[in-house]
Amino acid sequence: AEPEAPVVKTVIPGPRSQALREELDPIQCTDAVQFFADYEKSIGNYIADVDGNYLLDLYTQIASIPLGYNHPRILKAITDPANLSTFANRPALGVFPPSHFVKDLNETLLSVAPPKLRQVQTMACGACSVEHALKAAFMGYRRRERGGSPPSPEELETSLMNRPPGNPHLSVLSFKNAFHGRTMGALALTHTKWAHKLDFPSPDWPIATFPTLRYPLEEFAEENRLEEEKCLAEVRELIQDAKQKGKPVACVATEPIQCEGGDNFASPQFFQGLQDICQENNIYLLIDEVQTGAGTTGKFWVHEYFNLRDPPDLMTFAKKMLTGGFYYRDELRPTEGYRIFNTWIGDPSKIVILREVLATIKEEGLVQKTAELGKQMLQVLETAQAEFPNVVSRARGLGCIMSFDCPDAQTRDKLVGILRTYGVHVGTSGSSTLRLRPTLTLQKKHVDVFADRLRKSLQEL
Amino acid sequence: AEPEAPVVKTVIPGPRSQALREELDPIQCTDAVQFFADYEKSIGNYIADVDGNYLLDLYTQIASIPLGYNHPRILKAITDPANLSTFANRPALGVFPPSHFVKDLNETLLSVAPPKLRQVQTMACGACSVEHALKAAFMGYRRRERGGSPPSPEELETSLMNRPPGNPHLSVLSFKNAFHGRTMGALALTHTKWAHKLDFPSPDWPIATFPTLRYPLEEFAEENRLEEEKCLAEVRELIQDAKQKGKPVACVATEPIQCEGGDNFASPQFFQGLQDICQENNIYLLIDEVQTGAGTTGKFWVHEYFNLRDPPDLMTFAKKMLTGGFYYRDELRPTEGYRIFNTWIGDPSKIVILREVLATIKEEGLVQKTAELGKQMLQVLETAQAEFPNVVSRARGLGCIMSFDCPDAQTRDKLVGILRTYGVHVGTSGSSTLRLRPTLTLQKKHVDVFADRLRKSLQEL
Ligand code: FES
Repeated sequence: AEPEAPVVKTVIPGPRSQALREELDPIQCTDAVQFFADYEKSIGNYIADVDGNYLLDLYTQIASIPLGYNHPRILKAITDPANLSTFANRPALGVFPPSHFVKDLNETLLSVAPPKLRQVQTMACGACSVEHALKAAFMGYRRRERGGSPPSPEELETSLMNRPPGNPHLSVLSFKNAFHGRTMGALALTHTKWAHKLDFPSPDWPIATFPTLRYPLEEFAEENRLEEEKCLAEVRELIQDAKQKGKPVACVATEPIQCEGGDNFASPQFFQGLQDICQENNIYLLIDEVQTGAGTTGKFWVHEYFNLRDPPDLMTFAKKMLTGGFYYRDELRPTEGYRIFNTWIGDPSKIVILREVLATIKEEGLVQKTAELGKQMLQVLETAQAEFPNVVSRARGLGCIMSFDCPDAQTRDKLVGILRTYGVHVGTSGSSTLRLRPTLTLQKKHVDVFADRLRKSLQEL
Repeated sequence: AEPEAPVVKTVIPGPRSQALREELDPIQCTDAVQFFADYEKSIGNYIADVDGNYLLDLYTQIASIPLGYNHPRILKAITDPANLSTFANRPALGVFPPSHFVKDLNETLLSVAPPKLRQVQTMACGACSVEHALKAAFMGYRRRERGGSPPSPEELETSLMNRPPGNPHLSVLSFKNAFHGRTMGALALTHTKWAHKLDFPSPDWPIATFPTLRYPLEEFAEENRLEEEKCLAEVRELIQDAKQKGKPVACVATEPIQCEGGDNFASPQFFQGLQDICQENNIYLLIDEVQTGAGTTGKFWVHEYFNLRDPPDLMTFAKKMLTGGFYYRDELRPTEGYRIFNTWIGDPSKIVILREVLATIKEEGLVQKTAELGKQMLQVLETAQAEFPNVVSRARGLGCIMSFDCPDAQTRDKLVGILRTYGVHVGTSGSSTLRLRPTLTLQKKHVDVFADRLRKSLQEL
């Protein structure tokens, strides 16, 4: 069972973590390693490290653990003999799918498909989900341009040589501070930190400003509305520019909440406006829910809050969904085999675990519960903001996607360090944001521990 | 246990496969689906389908099954309670690695590291292995250009906006008919079929001709030597061109045997020459062993046959290694954290299985055995070539990477279909190549079945 409260026996990283890091360092760069975890001992919302510490985990492997560590239903599924062959034999899913594949898709991914999106493609991580979603958009765009004609011999031939018309000069519009992944196509949409980007060649695609909202929202309603309008106007302009430069925008990609970029929110009206612009210009809209999806916010997908006239054309997922992939509109189905393809395109053993995750979410009403817990967590942040206004600002959140800003990165990082000495493990993002990414099984008792430790940490700062 | 011989009860795809395909089709494009497999019943070198057929599998999930289906040691590892938490809790490996991570790397990936490459980075599939290997090369190239100075403020700033100097105009030289993956960066090096490439924007990077050798090699030694020299001269020229165009080549990427492109071989001298050119021009050499590696050819990695003066700077793997990743030279280590990174960067549960695979390979001497079996298989192909010279040509192979050409795609595909009615499952590649990609546990009895069925199929053609 989970410990009653965090257990902190050593500095973190402790001596064993440090020793392991020294052993790892000759093999690979260890600059990002925070500590070595003991996943056998980790339990529920507590992560254990190799030095005997137990931290309340509000970061959860960069927001990728849906139900906590060693959840009994997940353990049971892994040891179920009926699932053994799925773990042992990873198929080339696009050519030789397993007997139970259709059933699996229907009972897992399609059971949580966003409204009106009925096509689904599995992938293996967030980056390839975005990469292949973009490919589906490019294909759809060119198919529409061809108006039913087959590709020309010149297109077929040049496509092998990285040249137009086979490899057309199409672009994807993304937003400043967006994060969509680290492979070349996904990275072209990513604009967070230089460490993610420096030295890597990149297509010169248009990048628009994402709104920066002032908080509290009630107080700055008009100002925020104007800010969002300005951003939408810029999107329109960039789309025209790109067309004139001969690099028309085939797709607009956005997160529903910019996560790595600092938990930046925009209003439903902003996303409605974005969809309007896309539709007016025959551009596909990709909403990337890799970090935001899977029921952490009171709805299963964040874009369901936006009341869009039509569903997004493409929606990517990964992280808490355990498998990568994307949902998409019928119109974007590839019309030939092997277009959206690779050897594995996913991993059925992740679907085995996802099945338990989704069943647990449904049976225990975790989407609703998480939304309620989120409100309590947000109150904790708002209380801290009221008590420590020089340190905590812009307290914000939706469900359990929660964060606040510090005056600068140094203060933020110091606070994160102090929180850790009190046994609470949180994440960072943007330039000075502290972010919380708990599991869907967070409970009131965890919120209380967090409230107590956050207050102590802020006092100590 | 494996059946004594293939069992073919229905046409393939049979009625159940066809019914499942019809159920899958509303959800996703099924054009690439060949049949639905029963992975619970599949065993050793035989793949079972949902219609009760058992095919001798010489294609093995696009060359990604190392020891056959449901290998007892793999099943045992999955059910071993000591491994349970590794399957249940997928970590963010770059930040919170598991306690046993260093031990795992040392005992698995580093135990088969190519000579003199001691840095290893895990990844999750072939494409991200290539993408991130390229990133390591780009960073190394720019670091060398900076000569120890830190990046300029302008570089840091522009890197977020997809613009030089932060995102420099560097290029990667690849070869015609190469295949390196399907995400944007990997796809820029891929030049196989239009289905892989059409409609996708791509950086315009230099593409050189890969040698086309004439067979039998003994007979065409001089001609082949000239062909390879011509190709190397083209590489030199393209490197100069690229420099003049302001898109200098930072990396040359090649497979040691072009697999998807049609099992195209080149001599050790060719690869030695390629390394010479790279070293003369301060360009990194990436050898992509995603399909060729893992002991199928008599050496663990194919490039070990090339007697290169120095190891390749980077070497990628995936498929039969079960985890993706790359080995690389110390010089190419990132000098900051989060440069080569993503949420998962691999999956320790695949290392659990890899451990058993490598132990089995070593204990049973499978690299050597496979090389010997390969010779017998090649004899089968050469016999077929002698008996059916109008259908079978360019019989070739190294270990168990084996293939022959047919006069055209139609004939090849017809032969593949007939072989299937005889219960033998093979693959295709290039324009008219039939390729074999058996497991490392192939035995003489399987070779005999193949010889018999191939002869019958060719007679029937
Ligand atoms: S790119 Fe997603 S798993 Fe490799």
